Amino acid sequence: MPTEQQADEQIARTDERADAYVDLTLRVRYAETDQMGVAYYANHLVWFELGRTELFRQRGYTYQELEEKEGCYIMVAEAHCRYHAPARYDQLLTVRTRVKSARSRLLCFSYELLAEDGTRIASGETLHVITGRDGKPRSLPERYRQALLAPPTAGLAPTTTE
Amino acid sequence: MPTEQQADEQIARTDERADAYVDLTLRVRYAETDQMGVAYYANHLVWFELGRTELFRQRGYTYQELEEKEGCYIMVAEAHCRYHAPARYDQLLTVRTRVKSARSRLLCFSYELLAEDGTRIASGETLHVITGRDGKPRSLPERYRQALLAPPTAGLAPTTTE
Amino acid sequence: MPTEQQADEQIARTDERADAYVDLTLRVRYAETDQMGVAYYANHLVWFELGRTELFRQRGYTYQELEEKEGCYIMVAEAHCRYHAPARYDQLLTVRTRVKSARSRLLCFSYELLAEDGTRIASGETLHVITGRDGKPRSLPERYRQALLAPPTAGLAPTTTE
Amino acid sequence: MPTEQQADEQIARTDERADAYVDLTLRVRYAETDQMGVAYYANHLVWFELGRTELFRQRGYTYQELEEKEGCYIMVAEAHCRYHAPARYDQLLTVRTRVKSARSRLLCFSYELLAEDGTRIASGETLHVITGRDGKPRSLPERYRQALLAPPTAGLAPTTTE
Repeated sequence: MPTEQQADEQIARTDERADAYVDLTLRVRYAETDQMGVAYYANHLVWFELGRTELFRQRGYTYQELEEKEGCYIMVAEAHCRYHAPARYDQLLTVRTRVKSARSRLLCFSYELLAEDGTRIASGETLHVITGRDGKPRSLPERYRQALLAPPTAGLAPTTTE
Repeated sequence: MPTEQQADEQIARTDERADAYVDLTLRVRYAETDQMGVAYYANHLVWFELGRTELFRQRGYTYQELEEKEGCYIMVAEAHCRYHAPARYDQLLTVRTRVKSARSRLLCFSYELLAEDGTRIASGETLHVITGRDGKPRSLPERYRQALLAPPTAGLAPTTTE
Repeated sequence: MPTEQQADEQIARTDERADAYVDLTLRVRYAETDQMGVAYYANHLVWFELGRTELFRQRGYTYQELEEKEGCYIMVAEAHCRYHAPARYDQLLTVRTRVKSARSRLLCFSYELLAEDGTRIASGETLHVITGRDGKPRSLPERYRQALLAPPTAGLAPTTTE
Repeated sequence: MPTEQQADEQIARTDERADAYVDLTLRVRYAETDQMGVAYYANHLVWFELGRTELFRQRGYTYQELEEKEGCYIMVAEAHCRYHAPARYDQLLTVRTRVKSARSRLLCFSYELLAEDGTRIASGETLHVITGRDGKPRSLPERYRQALLAPPTAGLAPTTTE
C-alpha cells in the first residue's frame, strides 16, 4: 500500500504523462438522433462511458470483473460536457479517454469526442466514487488503481503526443 | 390453488371482459424523437412497459414488490408492435393496457397507443415468462395472478366498452 | 428592443427572484435503470430537458412552436450534473427548473432533482445558444426572451421561497 | 421497371438465396442494461436497426443518402422480436440481417442476434413502408431496390450456408 504521499506522487506522474489515452470508435445511431437532425445531448455521456469501459479493458480488466469479483461499483458523482459541434447520424466518432486522477476513493476521467476529420465534437469530464454492493464508499483495490495509472499496454492503446 | 381447468376458466372470463383496461398518459420526449421528426420505433416498447407497470399498480402491487419480496422477474419472451401513425414530440399519448391472458407461468398483455384526438398511433402485444432470481422459470404466486385477472379497482381504471 | 444595459438589468432582476421555478414530476422508468439497480447517469440530462420544456410551456410557449414558427433551435452548449443520491425504479422525482440567465443569444437553466421525501438526487446546469435552421447563431425573439424572464403564470407554477 | 410479375420472381429469387446475410458486431452497453442485470428489451430493436443500416451500406448506399438525395424515408410499419436468451453487459453480439422481401413500396427484413458462442439471443422481423418527406407513401427508386436484392458485395458480407 502506498502512503497518502506516494499516492499523490503517482497522481502527479499521471498528470505528467497526460498524453496517455485510449481511443474507441463508434458510429452515431439513428436512435441517437433527435428531430433537430443531430445526436441528442444525453448520448454524449453514454459515449463517454464506452470510452471509460474501453480504458478499463485496455488496462487489463473490466467493469464486469470489478462488480462481480470485487463487489466494487464505480458510481458517477459528477459529469460535465461541452458541446463544440453537432454529431450527426452515421458519423464515425472517436472517444479519446484519459485518466485525469486515480485516488483510492475518487477517480476522474476526461474525454474528447472527435470526428474523422479531427473536428472536436465534444469534451468532458466525469468524477466517480467507489462503493460496495451496499452503496457505501470503499477503496478501489490497489492493483486496479495501479493498472489505471500504468501506461496502456503496448500495441493496444497508442500513446502519442498530440 | 385452482386446477388447470379452473385456470382455463379464469382465462376465459378474462377474455370475456376484454374491455377492462388501464390507461396511462405520457408526453413524447425530445430525446425520443429521431431525425425523421417522429418518435423512434423502439420507444413504443418502453411506453408499453409503462402501461404494463401501471396495470400492475392499479391491480394493487408493483414490479418492484414482485422482484424484492417474491424474487419474481417478469421476463419478456416476445414483443410485437404495429405502427399505425407517427408519434410526434410533445404529443400526449395514452397507453391502454389489457391483460390478454394470465397463466401461472405465462402472461400476455395487449396495448393500444392513442393520441388525444383518438388516432391510433400503435398497437401491440408482449408475452412474458416468470423467472426467479436465478433466471429459471417459476410460477407467479397465485394472489398476484388473481389480482391481474381481477377487474380494475373502481374509480382508478375506467372500464368501458369501446 | 432593450439596450444591452437594459438586458443586463433584466438578468439582474431574474437573479433577484431566483426563487422562481417550475416543477415537473416524473416516475423513473424500468428502461432507465441499469444493472447497478439505479437510474443510469445519462437519464438525468433527459429529465433536465423535461423540466426545461415544462418551463417553456409554463411561460406560455413550446419548443415545438419556437422550432416551427420561428425557426429557432435551442442548442446545448454545455451540461453539468452532480449526482447526490441514486434514483431508483418507480420513484417519483421532481425536476425543479430555474432560468439562471436569459440573454438574447445565450440561455442558462439550473435544475434540482428531488425525491418525494425532499432528498436531493441531483443538481445541474445547462447552457444553450440559439441557432437558426442553418445551425448559425441567432437571437431569441425578444417576446420569447421576455416570457422566460417573466414570473410564472399565477396558478400554474408555484413561486415559493425555499 | 420490372412488371409486377417480374418483381414477384425477384422476391422468389431472394427467398431462394435466403442464406445471404450481413453481419454486424456490437458490444452491449452499460446504458442498455436494466436492474434485472440484462439488456432491456427495447434495445433489441435498436440493434436490429444497426443491422439494417449495415445491410444498406454493404449493398452500396446509406439511409442518409436515401433521405438526403432521394427524399425517401424507410418508415417502420411493424416490428416483432422473440427473446430467446438474455443479453448481458459487455457481451459481443452479432446482428445477422437478411432482406426477406423487397417490393417497391414494402420492405421486410429478418434478424438474428447471436452471442459469440453461437447462442441465439433473439430473432425478429421488421416491415417497412417507403414515404416521402411529406409522410405519404411512395416507391423506393428501382436501383436501390435492386441493390437490396443483389447478393452482398464479395469480400464484405460473407454468404454462407448455416
